Formats: sequence, structure tokens, C-alpha cells
Amino acid sequence: GRQYHINLSYGEVSKYVLLPGDPDRVEIIASFMDSYKIISSRREYKTANGKYKGIDISITSTGIGGPSISIALEELLRAGANTFIRIGTSGALQPFINVGDLIIGTSSFRLDGASNDYVERGYPATANYEIVNALIQAAESLNVRYHVGIIASTDTFYVGQGRPGFNNYLPKNKENIVEDLMKLNVLAFEMESSTLFTLSQIFKARAGCVCSAVANRIKDEFVVNAGIDDASKVALEATKIL
Amino acid sequence: GRQYHINLSYGEVSKYVLLPGDPDRVEIIASFMDSYKIISSRREYKTANGKYKGIDISITSTGIGGPSISIALEELLRAGANTFIRIGTSGALQPFINVGDLIIGTSSFRLDGASNDYVERGYPATANYEIVNALIQAAESLNVRYHVGIIASTDTFYVGQGRPGFNNYLPKNKENIVEDLMKLNVLAFEMESSTLFTLSQIFKARAGCVCSAVANRIKDEFVVNAGIDDASKVALEATKIL
Amino acid sequence: GRQYHINLSYGEVSKYVLLPGDPDRVEIIASFMDSYKIISSRREYKTANGKYKGIDISITSTGIGGPSISIALEELLRAGANTFIRIGTSGALQPFINVGDLIIGTSSFRLDGASNDYVERGYPATANYEIVNALIQAAESLNVRYHVGIIASTDTFYVGQGRPGFNNYLPKNKENIVEDLMKLNVLAFEMESSTLFTLSQIFKARAGCVCSAVANRIKDEFVVNAGIDDASKVALEATKIL
Amino acid sequence: GRQYHINLSYGEVSKYVLLPGDPDRVEIIASFMDSYKIISSRREYKTANGKYKGIDISITSTGIGGPSISIALEELLRAGANTFIRIGTSGALQPFINVGDLIIGTSSFRLDGASNDYVERGYPATANYEIVNALIQAAESLNVRYHVGIIASTDTFYVGQGRPGFNNYLPKNKENIVEDLMKLNVLAFEMESSTLFTLSQIFKARAGCVCSAVANRIKDEFVVNAGIDDASKVALEATKIL
Amino acid sequence: GRQYHINLSYGEVSKYVLLPGDPDRVEIIASFMDSYKIISSRREYKTANGKYKGIDISITSTGIGGPSISIALEELLRAGANTFIRIGTSGALQPFINVGDLIIGTSSFRLDGASNDYVERGYPATANYEIVNALIQAAESLNVRYHVGIIASTDTFYVGQGRPGFNNYLPKNKENIVEDLMKLNVLAFEMESSTLFTLSQIFKARAGCVCSAVANRIKDEFVVNAGIDDASKVALEATKIL
Amino acid sequence: GRQYHINLSYGEVSKYVLLPGDPDRVEIIASFMDSYKIISSRREYKTANGKYKGIDISITSTGIGGPSISIALEELLRAGANTFIRIGTSGALQPFINVGDLIIGTSSFRLDGASNDYVERGYPATANYEIVNALIQAAESLNVRYHVGIIASTDTFYVGQGRPGFNNYLPKNKENIVEDLMKLNVLAFEMESSTLFTLSQIFKARAGCVCSAVANRIKDEFVVNAGIDDASKVALEATKIL
Repeated sequence: GRQYHINLSYGEVSKYVLLPGDPDRVEIIASFMDSYKIISSRREYKTANGKYKGIDISITSTGIGGPSISIALEELLRAGANTFIRIGTSGALQPFINVGDLIIGTSSFRLDGASNDYVERGYPATANYEIVNALIQAAESLNVRYHVGIIASTDTFYVGQGRPGFNNYLPKNKENIVEDLMKLNVLAFEMESSTLFTLSQIFKARAGCVCSAVANRIKDEFVVNAGIDDASKVALEATKIL
Repeated sequence: GRQYHINLSYGEVSKYVLLPGDPDRVEIIASFMDSYKIISSRREYKTANGKYKGIDISITSTGIGGPSISIALEELLRAGANTFIRIGTSGALQPFINVGDLIIGTSSFRLDGASNDYVERGYPATANYEIVNALIQAAESLNVRYHVGIIASTDTFYVGQGRPGFNNYLPKNKENIVEDLMKLNVLAFEMESSTLFTLSQIFKARAGCVCSAVANRIKDEFVVNAGIDDASKVALEATKIL
Repeated sequence: GRQYHINLSYGEVSKYVLLPGDPDRVEIIASFMDSYKIISSRREYKTANGKYKGIDISITSTGIGGPSISIALEELLRAGANTFIRIGTSGALQPFINVGDLIIGTSSFRLDGASNDYVERGYPATANYEIVNALIQAAESLNVRYHVGIIASTDTFYVGQGRPGFNNYLPKNKENIVEDLMKLNVLAFEMESSTLFTLSQIFKARAGCVCSAVANRIKDEFVVNAGIDDASKVALEATKIL
Repeated sequence: GRQYHINLSYGEVSKYVLLPGDPDRVEIIASFMDSYKIISSRREYKTANGKYKGIDISITSTGIGGPSISIALEELLRAGANTFIRIGTSGALQPFINVGDLIIGTSSFRLDGASNDYVERGYPATANYEIVNALIQAAESLNVRYHVGIIASTDTFYVGQGRPGFNNYLPKNKENIVEDLMKLNVLAFEMESSTLFTLSQIFKARAGCVCSAVANRIKDEFVVNAGIDDASKVALEATKIL
Repeated sequence: GRQYHINLSYGEVSKYVLLPGDPDRVEIIASFMDSYKIISSRREYKTANGKYKGIDISITSTGIGGPSISIALEELLRAGANTFIRIGTSGALQPFINVGDLIIGTSSFRLDGASNDYVERGYPATANYEIVNALIQAAESLNVRYHVGIIASTDTFYVGQGRPGFNNYLPKNKENIVEDLMKLNVLAFEMESSTLFTLSQIFKARAGCVCSAVANRIKDEFVVNAGIDDASKVALEATKIL
Repeated sequence: GRQYHINLSYGEVSKYVLLPGDPDRVEIIASFMDSYKIISSRREYKTANGKYKGIDISITSTGIGGPSISIALEELLRAGANTFIRIGTSGALQPFINVGDLIIGTSSFRLDGASNDYVERGYPATANYEIVNALIQAAESLNVRYHVGIIASTDTFYVGQGRPGFNNYLPKNKENIVEDLMKLNVLAFEMESSTLFTLSQIFKARAGCVCSAVANRIKDEFVVNAGIDDASKVALEATKIL
């Protein structure tokens, strides 16, 4: 039958699925394909099927955070997918990363809660190395600036990433999180990859992540949608390479 | 300026905001109001403003899970709201709860990750008692079946709620979670209230939650959308009482 | 047979039990009843049975801390009680609370150890809402100042509540606990309610708590026994309302 | 001034203090001294001063559990004491321990909450070796059966020690605790020594513990007050040795 | 000056260092080089410098476990090294891995204690992707059987890897660890890579790991030294590729 | 058969085993015996058998850290040993300890990972009191300066003991560890005793530890090998006393 949240049945998606967070970004990414069709839209889960250089690729939005991407992943696997590339936005944590640069995640700092439901925190949230290689090769071939390394997935956008919450609430252990993660060589904050990587490894699926840096938290810079087109093209091209 | 995710500025929302998870449910709830207008829709955050028996009420969808509702709450507070009632769906954990019954949460079992970013796990995720009273009074006046007690917020819908994941993956500590929570007098599973309650208390905002039981996990029953209309009406009526 | 610590058998106590910490306070509270009789006294557990406006009410002292109140609760339940109101003293954590004011706890910050033996820390230590309502109504009818909200139960009176221990020992994580809890909108410190609330919910018993503020930790004020008579009267009156 | 809970000032107690849990046991222990006088009684804290073979010794009851003994210890230190021997009752966890035997604790399994307020859980709750030696020597000289080893301090008497709670509630992780601790060579359950030992080490005070086995949990045996007189005599004699 | 444990000064080692656990294996690995010389031997740290196909390579034994490899890594970095390949033995956890096969670790399950001193457990212990690629390429060119994936680093060889300890002691949470890790797609047990990977990422050094499977825990097979020569040759060849 | 790592069979070692960390120290200690013979050397495990004042004593090096000493202990027990005295070097944490003084550990602060595989962290890592007494008596008879108390076992020598790691990396929670442990009355840092003590208690073996202070971390003093001869002699003499 149809999967409860994504509203798709087995065989309705491709083996390769690109995973933006924002439903509105599904069509933006799809527009770089040779052709596409929206096949479903329920809650934060919108899905397009399309063709890119002869390959069948699906795009499904995941919503924000580990809980909603865990549902997308569980249900897409049951619908027949097995290779996932998240296309996201992120806040860079290193001074050498420019806004608009791409960040290819090799692994994630598990600061989320969802992955803990599956396995204890010491289990590494790692991207599949074949996807990492394909993303690097695609970024090289498209001649875009990129960085390769660890990214950190938090469960909250404000306090969890060191931004003061409402009424300037910020607990002591979050005050220096930006600086602490910079020293730990973490490249950027986002909110979904640690759940995606952890679950994919358990399920023997391949997963990767390419984010654009829409902000740099060290230099306090921000440009709306910076680099998202590049991330989309790199993810599509990487899928072709795989 | 405009809040980054919900795309609304200070003063654009009412003091009272109803919070369904599903963007598609915003208009369903709004249809029980005397009048309404969709004022924004970005990502999983769709907002309607309306009038119910003379009171201004907003409705904003939160998406699924603690991370996305934490963003909704942080940004709605900045937009001027201060009283929140989540309208959700849930899976009942007690044999005496019928599918379609309402569940009014007095507090939440914090099985989420997002609230941990704000305060350690021993801090109680409690609904505001005035909202609990108003919801009970509303349910009585509308003559619908309801239950009052603890609900549990998980970060994953499958494994975290004791459903086998892909390839039947289920870690040992989740195998008996349905039965364990039943014995602990938890009424139902859902995925957002513990984040909502925890953050609201820190921010001196009032929050409550009324869910319909679309499933009963003990009796293995499920009815699509069971009770959602009742939950919507009770939440609207409770807002009038407040 | 007789319960091991409280030295009472099934049927010897009323359904309603008031729970002061201090054995010497049992008779002080009982003196506000129409009649009473001390029926048992062993270790820190002294019990009086009495009549208040036609209702049978017992009073049992619990001693200090989660371990000793857990024993009182377990054994009183076996003796036939099912509704509990703790009457305590507390140190206020908000500047707007005067010494002598009452604090009605809606829920407790679980900083105790005893409740962890029963269920993990994310489970909310919540007062029964009917008792909260009855305590509010009683406080209104007796025209005493009161506050409603979260209270924090610690396992130590000195270091756990931010007071330097012997030789001024104070670990770093306790140095700012008064200020941190103030920001989290916690109303006061005491040492028993989180165990009482957590266990009562598991046992389907009703529990509540009314404390007098004998100190204000923010304003560094202290008055011996301030408000204890008020707390006693409110608890008795609330029992009548229930 | 007077200490808040024990109601004693600096100099009113001896350097040596014996610590039973039960206030009623203060006079029982004191009756083995050459002379004594009750000097204070407030809450669960009753204190006697006396002489034993020429030495000044105080006896103060601590109440049940880590929270109340932490208060006794903090305040007795401020009153001038520096050497403490707990005299307790316990439930034996080894088949070779007879009801009525004495157990001399070398260290405690920290299953309490109070000691965590002072230092993280890996810090060892250890008895002072001079007191251990004195207790052994005293037990030898009085020709009583005794055992030397680890004891476990829990925060609850029922569930924490593997006894079913009200309505037979027993969480999974407590079902085998008796057998698990037996395999770990823990001699007995009691409820105060881990707090006593941990805090005493931090405060450079000396502490020890001698318990009688009033029950054997493996053999399901129980004799009221078995061995308490022996424990009292051994503690007094050990104090003389020190 | 000289590093305290490895007894080497800055500049005395190559940028590339191979890291066996066993000091006796230093010369075995070195024998596959074109030339080498033992330059130091203190405690479990023996170091050889050599040439392989024109490249300068050092080999330093690390001893067993995270603590001793953390010292080797800290001191080798100070001595000028920046690229590390551990050559180890391991116990395979998948039925498809033959004894004698090689396992190339992409990341490690952090079941060690040493890495926790540096960063909390959610930080991923990940191998450098360039080294992973070089090891794969080397294994292909040498035509040896290999597997690529997650390995688990434990702090104990017996109980931590599910083998009964002395007197058959095995705590409940270790009873099924072999089966649990098999389901989590972990390839093998060893005892050093999670410390190596975690610290190397923090220090911006590159690290990888190639182990031979000397045992298969699922099939209960064991062959002394199986595959160690292959692992040595692959590591040397990979160094040349880097 | 032969134990896998120490390469010895049942009966090849004495009941009494001295445990230095460094293999090179085995012969140094042995040289204080009346006669000895090296019987095995594999990895970091070197073993000598000898005679001291008529008693058979073995000496086995353990390597650095909990993982390697856990292997030594497990395998020596299977080889027939049952009494263990670690002879180590340590960094003193109290101003009154001179470099070269001996430290006799009564118990260990469990900051290691290996002991956690066996039992949760609250279980006390305690030395056997008979060995503590014998070590004290031996130190007295040899007229060397010594201190008796708690020692702390860390899993890393640099960051875990508050020394900056490579590139001055030091996480916030380690910045004050020297001062914090000094206030907690911990005498010294070393890296093996908490694993040794914890496991020995579980296995009903006797274990103790005597360390020389080669450094004083408070006074920033360091003398290579200071006091090691004294520690060796005290351990040998204590064995004779036992």
C-alpha cells in the first residue's frame, strides 16, 4: 500500500532520491533536470520524478529536522529507493568558507535526537564514501568552490546553533558552541544529515549530503539562497556518476 | 523584519495560535472559524488568520517533530503570539481509549531531542493549567469523549514508537516501549508536545495540546483522520474560554 | 500486615493524606482540623487521623528527601490512601515571591535520584490537575497570596541548592543554579515533590503540593516558619473541595 | 549560630559521631554507653552526647536516604565533628551472610542521587581505611560474625532494591538487581552510606559504616532488628580504638 | 626536546606513519620496505624509519587500546608526522567476511573511553576519505579480498567484545553485542581506531585503518596472524598513492 | 592452552603478581628480588617469575591504560594468579606531596572507559583493604614517605590530565581538572588503577596500587623515575606481609 506520510507505493520512486528540506525547493532542483513531474505532495513531503542525462531520479522534500527526515527515509526505502543525496542549506563554521561555497559532508556530529532512537550516540554518522567521491568529482567538473569534512546536525535552529532564543534565552552550554565546533574542525551547521547518515548505514543504503553555505557564522555573513543552484547541479551530476 | 522561516513580522499574528502539524490541516481547522485568510506559506509553515466568536485566532502548521515546531514557536513568539494550542493526531496507548477520542495532554514524556537544547531532561514538559482547564471545559460543552493525562513525544515515528523500521530493524530498548508506556499511564504517542511545552514554560508563554486518537496501539486499530474535526472544534472553543 | 516503616495496616488511613516533611508539623497541621488523633509514630513517619468539615483526612510526615517520601507513598498506598497533598517549606527563586507567600506546584524539575529508580528522567513529574485547581480555589477562598508553577526538587539542601558546602565546597555546575532556575521560571526549591509526583502518576494516584516560601534565595530573605499555617489551611480546604 | 536542621551549635557535639538512621535507635545505642544525655531532637535528627570507656561520643540519627544524611553530615561538620560511623540495617545479597551478621563496608555502590550533587559518579564512595580496620578489630574482639566488602546505597527501598512497587510496578532494569549485585560481590543493600562516604572524602572527614543484616534477599529471610545491638557495640568499640 | 613516551624529537619521524599495535610487528611490516632502521624503543612504542618505493615512511607501534594510541598520536604529531594508517588485527562481525580478508574502516563506533576526553560521543570517528580511497586502490592493485565500512573500537577485549570474562562474568548489556553490531552493519571489532580517527580529525591530521580479520566472531573461526602481511602491503602501497 | 596476549598457561605464574606498566621496568623490579627469570614477552606483556624472601612472586607489565591492563588481568587470573599490586608512576595533585613520595591508593576515580564495560560507573573502584594495610606497613618498615588516599585513572595522558593536546587543544571541561581534583582530595593521576580495582572486585581477586610521584602537577615539578625503586621495594615487602 501507500506509505502513510509520503503517500507513495513501492516502485513509484527511483533508486536515486535527492532530498531537499524545503518542499518549495523540489521544483527548483527539478528544473535542472531534463524533464520532471510532481507525483505527490502531502504534509512537508513533496515528490518529483524526472530524468537527468538518461538517469531516473526522484526528489523528495524532507521537512526540517531529524524526525521528519527519518519518516521520509523509512518510507522511501519501502518505496524502493536505496541511494540518497541531501541538498541543504547550512551555516558555515570556518573562516575560510565563503557564503555560496558548497560543503560536502563526510560525516555528521550527532547533535540530533532522532538517530538515538536507532542506535547509541557513539555509532558514527558517516556518508557513503562512493557518494562523497561522486560529489567531489561533480564539484570539480562543475568548477564550483567546495569543502569536504564534518558537518553538525542540531535539533534546534536557534538555541542549538548558539543563536539566542526568545527573550535572549541561551543556556550556558550553548554560548560557545560556534567557537567550540570551529575548533573541532566542523565545517557547518545544518539539521538533518546525522539522522540521514545514521539510519542509512543501518539500512545498508547509501547516503551523502551537499550543502551550500547560505551563512557564515564566524564572519556573521548571510546571503539568501546562496549556492543552492550549485548544490542542486552537483547533486544531480554526482547521481549520474554513481 | 520578517521571521526567517514562518515569513511573518511582528503583529501579523494573533496572541492565540493553533498549531496543527500538517500544513494541509490549516484550512480544515480554519473552516470551523467564522472567517479566515491564509497570510503566509513557506516550507512546512502555513499560517491563517481568522475570527472565531469574536476572537482573533491564528493557525500555523508546525511540520513534524521537535526541530520544526521549535522554529515555529521561536518565530511566532517574536511575531507577537503568546498562547499556543497544538492540535494533533496521536496513537493511543491505553485500552480504554477509543479511536476518535480526544486526548488532552497535561504534560509530556520528553523523548525528543529538541527540548534538550534548552534545558536538561529532568525539567518537566508541562501544559499550562489554564489551557488544560479550558480544553476540558470545551470538550465537556461540545460533548465529545476525552481523556486527560500524560502524552509521550518521540523523535521518530517508526522505531521510536515501537514500530519496526526498514528491514524490521528494531533495537532491544524499543521492543516493549508500547507496553512500558501503557504501564506508566501514558495516554498516547505524538511527536511535538514535549518541545512545545518545555520551550513555552521557559518563555513564559502558555501552551496546551489536544490530540485525536487516530490509532490505538494496544488494540491495533486505525482510522484515518478520526477525531480531527472534534479536536479542532475543542481547541477553538477553548481559545474562546481563555 | 503492618507496613514496615509507617507501621500502619490497610484501612487505617483515610483516602486523603496530607504530607508534611517534618514529624513535628503533623500536630501543627492537625490542630487546624475539627478533631484528630495521633495513630502511629515510627522513624520520621508520624501519622494523625482527623476530621475536617466532615471529611476524614490523615496526615503523615515523610521526612526529608525523595528516598523517605518514596517509602511513605508506597506504604500509604498499600494502607488504602489515593490522594496526596504535600505541605512543605521552600526557598523562592523569583523576585516577585514574598517570604510567606504560598507556591502551588504544577510540576517538578526532577533533580532527585529516587524517581529515577521508577522511570527515566524525561517522564514529567506533574501534579494532578484537579488538585492544582482545588489548591488554587482554596487559596482564593482563604485570600492568601499564592503563585502557580514549576518547583524544583533537589537531593541536597546545601550544594544541590547552590549553597556552599562544608569548607565552602561548591562544584562549578552548582555555582549558578539559583540564577539558572530563576531564568527557567522555576518558582522555588524544595526536596520531595518530584518523587511524589512521578510515583503518583505511575500509581494512578492523585498528588499535589503547596509550599510556603520561608526564604527568598534571590533577595536573600528568610523568616522561620513563614506561611506554614496558610499552607496547612489551604491544603485542608483543598481536600474538602476535591 | 545553631545549624538549621540538627539544631546544634559549634562545639555541642563530639569529634566522634555515630549515625543510626532511625531516631528511636539513638537511645538504644546510647544505652550501651557509660552515660548519655539527649541534647537535641528536631525533625528526624535526634542527638545524644555520652561517654564510652572515657571517650566523648555523640549519636545523631540521620533519617532515611542520601538527602537527609547529607544535611546531617554538613551540619555536624559545622558543629565540630570529623569522624563518623554509620550504624545501619541492611538486606544481605550473598548466600553466605546470615541474618544477624554484621557487614563492614569498605566502599559503596553509588546508586543514590545526593552524592551526584557533589561530584560525578565515577568518584569512589570509600570508607576511611582506619575506620574499616577499627571496625574489624572491634568485631574480632567482640567475637561477632562479620563480613567486609562493598555495600550498595539505593534511593528507594522498594523498586530500587528490586521489590515490586505498588500494583506490582517494577521496571525492567530493576527485575534482576538482586542477582546482578550478588554477582558483582556486593554484600548488602542499604540507603545512606554512598552519600556519607562520598561527602566525607571531599570534606577530609573520616567515615565508616557497620550494618547488621536484618534480611537476606537471596534466601528470603528476615528477622526484625537482628544484629543491631552487635552493630552498636562494634561501632562504639571501634571509636575507642580510633 | 624528546617526546616523553615515544622518545623521539621533532623531525625524527616521517610525515607518513604506519601504526601497528604490537611492537613485534614493527619489523615485520618494515621488512616489506626497501630498507629500514629501528630508531627507538621505549615501553610499547617501537619506531622504525624506512623507504618504500622512494617514500620516507615511519612505523610506530601503539600498544593496545585508546589510551596508549592517544599518547602515540599526540607525540608523533609533535615529532612532525601528519598522516597515519593503523595496521591492525580484528574480529569480523559479518558472515561474508573470511578470516584473512582485509577490512578498510570508513569510520568507527566509539565504544572507547579515550576519545571522550577530547569531544563528546556524538562527534563522528571518521577516517580521512583520501586514505580510504588510497587503501581501496592499493587493495585492488594487490588483488586482495577487502571490505569497506564501519568498525567498532572497544576498551576491553573480553567483556567489551562479548567474550565471557573470568569466571564467566558477562553483564547483560554485552550478551548480544556481537549480534547487535552485526545488525548495525559493523564489520569488525578492534580496539584503537575510534581514538585514532577522533583525535586526528580534531588535529587536522589524516588517519585511516586497514585491519586483517584474524577471527570471525559469527562463524567462530580464528587463524593466527591471518592477513597481516596483506594489510601491511596494502598500507605501504596506499602511502605511496597518497 | 596459552593465554592469547600474555602467552602463559595455567600454573606458569605465581598467586602474587606485581604489575608495572612499562615492560622495561619488569627487570628493574625483579632485580630487587633474590632471584628471577623472564618467562615470557609478547606485545607490552613481559613476565618474570622470581623469589623474594622465600615467596614466589611474578611480575607482568601491563602496558599503558585500562584496555591493556584489563587483558593482563583477565589472562593472569586464568593463569592462576589472584593477588595483584600495581607499581606505577603518577602525577601528584596535592601540594604536600613531594616528587619521589609514594602514593598508596585506597580507591580510584573512574575516569577510564574499560571498567564501564564491566559495570556501571557508580560501582566503587576500591583497593583490597588487606593490601592497603600491607603496603602501609611495608612503607613504614622501609621508612619511606608515603600518602594514602584516592587516585584518579584517566584514559588519556595529555587532555585527560589537563595538559593541552596538539595545537593546544583543550576542551573546556578539562581546563580546571587539576584544580578540581585537588579540591576533591584526589592524590594523583595515573592511568590503570580504576580498571584494575573494578575488575578485581568483580572477580573476587585482591588488588592494590603503589605509585611514586614522578611529577607534582600543582607545583609543576618533574623528576624522571623518582621514587620507582621505593615503590618496587614497598610492593615486594607488602607481598611478603600478605
